[in-house]
Amino acid sequence: MRDVARHTLLSGGKRIRPMLAILTARALGHTAQDILPIACAVEMLHSATLLHDDVLDGATLRRGNTAAHVKFGAPEAILAGDVLLALANKLGAEYDIPRLNSLLAQGIMATAEGEIRELAHTANPTADRAAYMDIIIGKTARLIETACRLGAALASRDRAVEDAAGAYGLNLGIAFQLVDDALDYDATEKETGKPLGGDLREGKMTLPLILHLESLPAEEAAQVLTMLKEKRLTPAVAEGILTAIKEKGLASKTLEAAEKYVETAVGALATLPDCVERTVLIQASKYVLSRRK
Amino acid sequence: MRDVARHTLLSGGKRIRPMLAILTARALGHTAQDILPIACAVEMLHSATLLHDDVLDGATLRRGNTAAHVKFGAPEAILAGDVLLALANKLGAEYDIPRLNSLLAQGIMATAEGEIRELAHTANPTADRAAYMDIIIGKTARLIETACRLGAALASRDRAVEDAAGAYGLNLGIAFQLVDDALDYDATEKETGKPLGGDLREGKMTLPLILHLESLPAEEAAQVLTMLKEKRLTPAVAEGILTAIKEKGLASKTLEAAEKYVETAVGALATLPDCVERTVLIQASKYVLSRRK
Repeated sequence: MRDVARHTLLSGGKRIRPMLAILTARALGHTAQDILPIACAVEMLHSATLLHDDVLDGATLRRGNTAAHVKFGAPEAILAGDVLLALANKLGAEYDIPRLNSLLAQGIMATAEGEIRELAHTANPTADRAAYMDIIIGKTARLIETACRLGAALASRDRAVEDAAGAYGLNLGIAFQLVDDALDYDATEKETGKPLGGDLREGKMTLPLILHLESLPAEEAAQVLTMLKEKRLTPAVAEGILTAIKEKGLASKTLEAAEKYVETAVGALATLPDCVERTVLIQASKYVLSRRK
Repeated sequence: MRDVARHTLLSGGKRIRPMLAILTARALGHTAQDILPIACAVEMLHSATLLHDDVLDGATLRRGNTAAHVKFGAPEAILAGDVLLALANKLGAEYDIPRLNSLLAQGIMATAEGEIRELAHTANPTADRAAYMDIIIGKTARLIETACRLGAALASRDRAVEDAAGAYGLNLGIAFQLVDDALDYDATEKETGKPLGGDLREGKMTLPLILHLESLPAEEAAQVLTMLKEKRLTPAVAEGILTAIKEKGLASKTLEAAEKYVETAVGALATLPDCVERTVLIQASKYVLSRRK
């Protein structure tokens, strides 16, 4: 099991969630090293969801590496995910702060719920922006919010302080996923470790595709939705959609939407003390916009 | 997701784990109704492991019903399991007792580890009783121990008291799984909701089969092990093994082994106050031996 967990945990992710937990705690004056276990816990939760998601999606690549379920088997990947979920909760329980376990539980629940919404939406796709936002908030933004709340909850018992950190994390997380969805139509496999246009081929309805469908005559958009729903998007049609999205600059439009969430995220930091960690949190939000993987 | 969880939670399991949590807490003088959420949490953990296990094993029946992954899909079953794991931890975190989350985490970790050992052992079967004991302790007994420890930890901060309850649960859990493994060779599908001889067909090495292999000449035993390992047990050979195990009374021998663990379990209750709940816990251990499903 250690091999499976190691394959996922040490395969070179960005580790943005533990970094946010540490920065948030420090920005709020918590300098003790005891932030490290809970920061690891949030990365373990994230890795657990990746292990399970790749089984669900049948994805073969993760972070440019063979996905764990391909290398070790689906049962092994599912059980390693369960072990990581348990280990994260165990690390959280070793603090004398029940709020930490409550936050971990809410984070993993929201993530699973987001995945479930995405499954349902992929089975019956619509060009509905509100449904898309619900999905990305659940599957990505809530766990990034959780990371920030964990750091804040360790540093302070003041719920208003935790809420400010949570608002930063939630909006940063939304921006993070919007950028991810833009990169899927814009970046090369060499940059992201995932094949270009993978979301389209999996029938995932993300903002670039929604913007494309909104730009089409209603009848044509309905045809594409039907093809997605019935899983009969031909390579030629997919290629045409990828080209149209590139020509119309819809990945850039998605990045513009992400910028607005980054602004809101930075605004939520206003109530935090002016310190070097807050500056790094602001820089982190710019990094989210400029990243290419 | 509610439908998937409901299908599993409400399909008529024995609910022995929440019952044990409640009885243990009450036996130790904890009469408040706040035992109920943590009792539900341990059943949710159990249901989560069933949801994931049935995906891993490709089992199509559970408690006499269609397995959730067959009815709702494997992704839905995996995610519903994750939601139940999170919900259990959330219920635990709502008490002001971090020990409860620590116990929940250890319970789920041990269960996943037991499953992993079983997978590895099924891929490379041996007639090794120690390996078998490690598997059944992990996959079954630890979560039953957890149920008893949770009840005790809610009632008392005294770790020696929790340990006594844990010793009862651990030994009862071992007996419980031994009986399960005996029933697999002895009870009808109508009784258990699972097909007779399912473990043998899945290549699971349980005590009746170990006893059978121990009774064979070394060469013949090695042949059966090779067939199990290479997944080429013919229906005729399987039928022959089922008949031999029945004729040699090896399911009964397995029940005798279970009786010894029940004696140890009952012995561990000696330090608990003499009360009606303790009497029921003693009766519960007799029920474990006499159950037919």
